Amino acid sequence: MKNTFGNQFTITLFGESHGEAIGAVIDGLASGIQLDLSFINQMMQKRKAKGNISTKRHESDEIQIVSGYFNGYTTGTPLTILIKNEQNHSKDYEKTKDLLRPSHADYTADLKYNGYQDYRGGGHFSGRITAPLVACGAIAMQVLNQKGIFIGSHIKQLHHISDISFASDEKILEQQIKKMNQSDFAVLDSDKKQQMISHIEEAVKQKDSVGGILESAILHVPLGIGEPFFDSIESRLSHLLFSVPAVKGVEFGLGFNFANHYGSECNDEFIYQDNQIKTRTNFNAGINGGISNGMPILLRTVIKPTPSIFKEQHTVNKQTLENTVLSIQGRHDPAIIHRARIVIDSVLAIGILDMIMEHEATLSMNK
Amino acid sequence: MKNTFGNQFTITLFGESHGEAIGAVIDGLASGIQLDLSFINQMMQKRKAKGNISTKRHESDEIQIVSGYFNGYTTGTPLTILIKNEQNHSKDYEKTKDLLRPSHADYTADLKYNGYQDYRGGGHFSGRITAPLVACGAIAMQVLNQKGIFIGSHIKQLHHISDISFASDEKILEQQIKKMNQSDFAVLDSDKKQQMISHIEEAVKQKDSVGGILESAILHVPLGIGEPFFDSIESRLSHLLFSVPAVKGVEFGLGFNFANHYGSECNDEFIYQDNQIKTRTNFNAGINGGISNGMPILLRTVIKPTPSIFKEQHTVNKQTLENTVLSIQGRHDPAIIHRARIVIDSVLAIGILDMIMEHEATLSMNK
Amino acid sequence: MKNTFGNQFTITLFGESHGEAIGAVIDGLASGIQLDLSFINQMMQKRKAKGNISTKRHESDEIQIVSGYFNGYTTGTPLTILIKNEQNHSKDYEKTKDLLRPSHADYTADLKYNGYQDYRGGGHFSGRITAPLVACGAIAMQVLNQKGIFIGSHIKQLHHISDISFASDEKILEQQIKKMNQSDFAVLDSDKKQQMISHIEEAVKQKDSVGGILESAILHVPLGIGEPFFDSIESRLSHLLFSVPAVKGVEFGLGFNFANHYGSECNDEFIYQDNQIKTRTNFNAGINGGISNGMPILLRTVIKPTPSIFKEQHTVNKQTLENTVLSIQGRHDPAIIHRARIVIDSVLAIGILDMIMEHEATLSMNK
Amino acid sequence: MKNTFGNQFTITLFGESHGEAIGAVIDGLASGIQLDLSFINQMMQKRKAKGNISTKRHESDEIQIVSGYFNGYTTGTPLTILIKNEQNHSKDYEKTKDLLRPSHADYTADLKYNGYQDYRGGGHFSGRITAPLVACGAIAMQVLNQKGIFIGSHIKQLHHISDISFASDEKILEQQIKKMNQSDFAVLDSDKKQQMISHIEEAVKQKDSVGGILESAILHVPLGIGEPFFDSIESRLSHLLFSVPAVKGVEFGLGFNFANHYGSECNDEFIYQDNQIKTRTNFNAGINGGISNGMPILLRTVIKPTPSIFKEQHTVNKQTLENTVLSIQGRHDPAIIHRARIVIDSVLAIGILDMIMEHEATLSMNK
Repeated sequence: MKNTFGNQFTITLFGESHGEAIGAVIDGLASGIQLDLSFINQMMQKRKAKGNISTKRHESDEIQIVSGYFNGYTTGTPLTILIKNEQNHSKDYEKTKDLLRPSHADYTADLKYNGYQDYRGGGHFSGRITAPLVACGAIAMQVLNQKGIFIGSHIKQLHHISDISFASDEKILEQQIKKMNQSDFAVLDSDKKQQMISHIEEAVKQKDSVGGILESAILHVPLGIGEPFFDSIESRLSHLLFSVPAVKGVEFGLGFNFANHYGSECNDEFIYQDNQIKTRTNFNAGINGGISNGMPILLRTVIKPTPSIFKEQHTVNKQTLENTVLSIQGRHDPAIIHRARIVIDSVLAIGILDMIMEHEATLSMNK
Repeated sequence: MKNTFGNQFTITLFGESHGEAIGAVIDGLASGIQLDLSFINQMMQKRKAKGNISTKRHESDEIQIVSGYFNGYTTGTPLTILIKNEQNHSKDYEKTKDLLRPSHADYTADLKYNGYQDYRGGGHFSGRITAPLVACGAIAMQVLNQKGIFIGSHIKQLHHISDISFASDEKILEQQIKKMNQSDFAVLDSDKKQQMISHIEEAVKQKDSVGGILESAILHVPLGIGEPFFDSIESRLSHLLFSVPAVKGVEFGLGFNFANHYGSECNDEFIYQDNQIKTRTNFNAGINGGISNGMPILLRTVIKPTPSIFKEQHTVNKQTLENTVLSIQGRHDPAIIHRARIVIDSVLAIGILDMIMEHEATLSMNK
Repeated sequence: MKNTFGNQFTITLFGESHGEAIGAVIDGLASGIQLDLSFINQMMQKRKAKGNISTKRHESDEIQIVSGYFNGYTTGTPLTILIKNEQNHSKDYEKTKDLLRPSHADYTADLKYNGYQDYRGGGHFSGRITAPLVACGAIAMQVLNQKGIFIGSHIKQLHHISDISFASDEKILEQQIKKMNQSDFAVLDSDKKQQMISHIEEAVKQKDSVGGILESAILHVPLGIGEPFFDSIESRLSHLLFSVPAVKGVEFGLGFNFANHYGSECNDEFIYQDNQIKTRTNFNAGINGGISNGMPILLRTVIKPTPSIFKEQHTVNKQTLENTVLSIQGRHDPAIIHRARIVIDSVLAIGILDMIMEHEATLSMNK
Repeated sequence: MKNTFGNQFTITLFGESHGEAIGAVIDGLASGIQLDLSFINQMMQKRKAKGNISTKRHESDEIQIVSGYFNGYTTGTPLTILIKNEQNHSKDYEKTKDLLRPSHADYTADLKYNGYQDYRGGGHFSGRITAPLVACGAIAMQVLNQKGIFIGSHIKQLHHISDISFASDEKILEQQIKKMNQSDFAVLDSDKKQQMISHIEEAVKQKDSVGGILESAILHVPLGIGEPFFDSIESRLSHLLFSVPAVKGVEFGLGFNFANHYGSECNDEFIYQDNQIKTRTNFNAGINGGISNGMPILLRTVIKPTPSIFKEQHTVNKQTLENTVLSIQGRHDPAIIHRARIVIDSVLAIGILDMIMEHEATLSMNK
């Protein structure tokens, strides 16, 4: 199913950037969960555009729950989230609607939908569709937090500026995650944070955009979730991560750097310590054979520079088939990585919760 | 479903390394496909261990089709492939079965299956389970080739030794793919190929192992396949890629290198040329918004060094919970990247075919 | 997935009887379908309560399409239907909310959702949730009609009053289907129609309710759809049919009456006639081995009497656990069969369209 | 997926009647289940042809477990069952292979698979494919029995001969189920059993076949399983039941007889008794709103007369398109209902276990 994901905790996304409303349906929620609306709202806020490093389109992104929620608790039936679209400057798109925006989905949408797609603001391809995804993620996150599982991300790299890495010590890591979850622009090293913000502001002046790399951590994942084959933790999480617009690469643990090491350098040796089996190192990011070993799950995701730049670009007019130049109008983000990180956290929460539930289903057979 | 993947072209994998047989069921095959058994066998051969750069376990890997195949053609009902396990030196595993092999799935399997798993040779986690996967991939590949779609991979990097990249020119790329598909050790630059083989032999002497990076190309993908959200091409392919043992990172096009560029440097401008719309560059690997634009799909996958090394390693005895050292016995690969590339090709074929079929299902609504 | 059905044409239902809105998401719609809103509206009208043989709750049931629809055509992205709830007399349910209504889902909902469900008006169990289902069905029906496939139902039996059966002659059957599709109270024999209506009115006076049997026909089903095993036409359609509230039995062709015949009496012999292979009889309802043979698909569905009756009934107070009596208040249908038939048509359309699309996916492999 | 069913307990079936082997893969089994092979074998025996009331094809139906089973316990990885085909009298089918057998799947298979299907003995459509299904069902049944859930069926009607019904008293019902599970020809009233057997023997003499109706009971179903919409208990079970060859009708509780009653006659009133809430009657078969209420689930399934009869029948030669007559050769069952009942029990066990596991997955969210 194209816009549905999850086996037990299932998300269906819908909506277009300039349509009436966007939203999501969550099926598989247990009943009796007292939703922490202020927590959900905080996560929604972190995804929102703010200041001059983001688009000038400011949506209130107020979520409206139209089903599955009664007297402050989930009912156990499908929970539907609606978010009204408000700031539709649809006219921005009329003038240039035949000019294919480079690295956008204009052309592929046209191929796929034969010209019938809602092209305004990217339609269903808009990053705006990640707003209801974050709402779903926030609900999953609340459930995980209650189980003692924590998820967070920081901007490991923005263009050429690098942050420090997450700590390997679990206690420090937990503090870092909590700090990032409180932050609007999630960077561990505050000096680097300022440099990054300045660099985005500089990109705005240059009518250009920048991308970067997010590092994410999932702490206290239950032992033994994930499956040997098609449902390895890496498979399930990458499926979700690559559905987030602008993601073009995902790596776990040492990731691509595994290529530069001998096996003897990057195997994670086991050690019995503090009454539990651990690994001395965590190059495999808490996952062996697709299954969690209890160590933190660590991963990196690359967010490409926003394709919407104000610099003039070469392109084709899809009606006349003439080669021409395009100056993108409208309101756009010079960088989305600081907003995307909350989307990444959201899909990680959705994926992990779903795998935990499936694992519990199997365990119940022996009860 | 844990060991099943695909919506229209569906693969179910089963079996353990030292069990009686491993295999796969393909459901959703059309009837009337004349299977090219010699082509399937060639792909199986490329996955097999050969020479001193691979394990000494030499299985014939003869596939036996026990259903869904009649008088040389597919019947349209489930096609079941069985491969007998022959060279089971199960005793190799008895002595050390309580010692958790670092970076193997011994510990996580134990957590997940509570000690009931077949531990011999990695059981269901063994790379051996990729043999029936390649058989399925070969069938998908045959179907794709008949549609003019070609898939191939080469070893872009083995440890510190790098091959050249696939050509951007489609005609040259097609020749490269075909050449790689004929090769047992797929490297574009033959000098580098020799260096790589020597380096693996050197790793054997050091009782160590090496990994690397595969670059894969998919040529002539139909326009408009893939979906905006959870079934983007990247999502579906990465789901399959990360289910292949040893894969720890996947990137499409520029991948992680997107982080180092301004948007203006890495947007793919459109151009109308030779009566078609193309992109001047292909940093996005033929995929915009999750959907194919007709340019080659290019991706890289990191294969970590084989965890089975003969060097002594620290670990834990899971019964006594003592910290101890382990010298792995048995027959193991000092590198698997040259074998893994055919597994990567196989899952790419399976994934692309499935998405093409789904796209056709949707198109049929308007017929 | 609990509230989602379909592989290629996928429906997700949401909403509660007295919540803010009910609705559905359709995923997998092709782009470029010019929706016939008046046709959809006609189907919605037929489901609606009318006159004194139905509930006094009169909802406008106006559908609002909030995504996937642009300039009069489907876009190919998820199409979301919202229907506002208007006539919520929620207070009707407050007084008796602890009294379990016999044969309703009050008790099972309480068991399943631990008391957190929205109990007002049956919540998610309300027949009201079939309104968006009919909207989805109408869209599927429009697509099928354009392919020359027709679906219709009539009230074969209301309590003890029987209608004639659908004709075996295909041309007459097609006329009957079209006539039923125009009718608000679908009965072939107009004398019986009047008797049935009178009998329902009589049931109202007796503070009681009645049920009956629907006979449905699907005409011009493409050859070869359905699957040998778990996706037989009967399996897929019955799955959908039994999800409609009040359905407690489904039979195809001769159905339960097969038990009363020798094989020689109820085998459908083949005959070559008018340049095609047909069966002389159609006891198997156009389905052999789960697959369509081109003859009309005929089936019967029993709709039990509405459980909401105004007669006093014995029950239990779930809070005090006292045995007590209940006089149901509120607005209820003395019969729903005349409204249910359009729901039955809708799920048949959804099921058949999905199976056609899957069949086309498989066929495309050989193209 | 066509030949796969189940969300958490997943069955994939494969094989053809005269191919090398038939079988099934179960995915989602917990590890550590000590399989009771003698119990599985007993269920396999009950499905087998015996005496002169069944086909003369006597297969040993010995199951071979080739994966997922180690040292007497399930491993938690896919469990694969193989059954060799032995008594292939394929020549029986050569002479008449162009003559479409009435009410068989010959014609529809030909339409669907374009002539490439394995036609021998019905190929994948053969009742023989239910042998691995019973093996899967036996494993599910063992798990359910350990949870105190019992399932059984009896022949409620064979042609015109009727058995008594299952008792409404749960203790007596439990005894009846256990007795039926010990019986080769499951009839409650032993006088009727003899009459039925004689009647089948009579049908053999007349070169004809007979069908009938099975009544099944599921006892001690956990409270609150099933879902309001597409996964109602009735939906999921009917999906499975209608995939069993020869099933043409399914009804729960009063079933079609609901049509003959006023609501006041067939509502199940609640009563608090023996410290629990029960219903006085059980017309709804333990299911309200698609969800279990703790009362026994009762259902009836019609098994049509075997289409293979030795009487001469009219049909068409699919090659010459001539109308002709056919005398079926080979070995066939004059009745399959006494064998089918164990298949029905098997699919009920598979369906109920899967729903229990899903319910547990949801409950785990609040843990």
